[in-house]
Amino acid sequence: MNVVKRVIHFATKNKGKYDEAVRVALTYGIELAQVSLEKYEIQADDLRKIATVAAEQALKEAKTSAILAEDSGFFIDALNGFPGPYSSYVYRTLGVDGVLKLLEKVDERRARFASAVAYCDEGHTICFEGVVEGNVCLRPRGQKGFGFDPIFIPDRGDGRTFAEMDTDEKNRYSHRALAFSKFCEWASHRLCTND
Amino acid sequence: MNVVKRVIHFATKNKGKYDEAVRVALTYGIELAQVSLEKYEIQADDLRKIATVAAEQALKEAKTSAILAEDSGFFIDALNGFPGPYSSYVYRTLGVDGVLKLLEKVDERRARFASAVAYCDEGHTICFEGVVEGNVCLRPRGQKGFGFDPIFIPDRGDGRTFAEMDTDEKNRYSHRALAFSKFCEWASHRLCTND
Repeated sequence: MNVVKRVIHFATKNKGKYDEAVRVALTYGIELAQVSLEKYEIQADDLRKIATVAAEQALKEAKTSAILAEDSGFFIDALNGFPGPYSSYVYRTLGVDGVLKLLEKVDERRARFASAVAYCDEGHTICFEGVVEGNVCLRPRGQKGFGFDPIFIPDRGDGRTFAEMDTDEKNRYSHRALAFSKFCEWASHRLCTND
Repeated sequence: MNVVKRVIHFATKNKGKYDEAVRVALTYGIELAQVSLEKYEIQADDLRKIATVAAEQALKEAKTSAILAEDSGFFIDALNGFPGPYSSYVYRTLGVDGVLKLLEKVDERRARFASAVAYCDEGHTICFEGVVEGNVCLRPRGQKGFGFDPIFIPDRGDGRTFAEMDTDEKNRYSHRALAFSKFCEWASHRLCTND
């Protein structure tokens, strides 16, 4: 059984992301502490690169010896991967309705959410990824979650969107939960002492 | 009369941007040399911030004592400024047709191109901006220029799109030409010796 031996800092201003991550980490006996730093984000197609630079920059700013940063994106096949790593900006400007307008009269609605979690200490940075496959629905459904959750139906679910699930349920399928699970698996061996 | 006293390096991989800038600079007796570096771009809504970080990073990578970097964006009012600083990514994924689809049945078609030119030497970074106001047309027209040029009609022109103008003509109105003109004005006083 894992025993909480240390707190790991997670640099994010997004309360929704933090809430998802903290629940995953607790199942591994790891406590996450939110560090509300402005995220330093580069423009890149590769989420791992964005998360890595964000974690390295956060480590410089935060008074901690190690830190986590996460980057995620929503990739729609029929739109050549758009909005991809710029999902947050696209959500703020076009919103869910803008993305649905781009998909009007488009039958091919395959999409995926992806997440990259980067852990950085003074020695190195290591990245963990999670992906969830699904489809974009025709109309937004649900009020939970955030971002494009109301228009994404994960393949492994029962036909509901992410926004129709509470956090624990979404975490059973989500890209972010998967990436954080991989991190926690690694961290519980590497960073914590098991009894 | 200005005499070319030095070459100023411009970090860009975009031949179209370089061609526009070099013509402007020459009218001030300034020679621009292209440095084909991968641009280091942060995610930000402010073009000046993006250009500044790009110039500072380029200076670290290039073997020069001073360098220029430029960032530009296409801001559409009805889309809350989208695609803004992410115009290049949006052009690669959605293209001109995607942006026109977002504007289907939208009467309000005001838009602007903006450019920020950052000059960085070892002592400081200074930014120069240019903006050109206009409208998004209903259908793409013209083969010249690059990016969203085929759907942008500048107010100060004669109704043609940027893509229907050759470089010298576009430079009479363009955001980039204006930003580079401001830089050259400053540079011809500050950096060159006038006879």
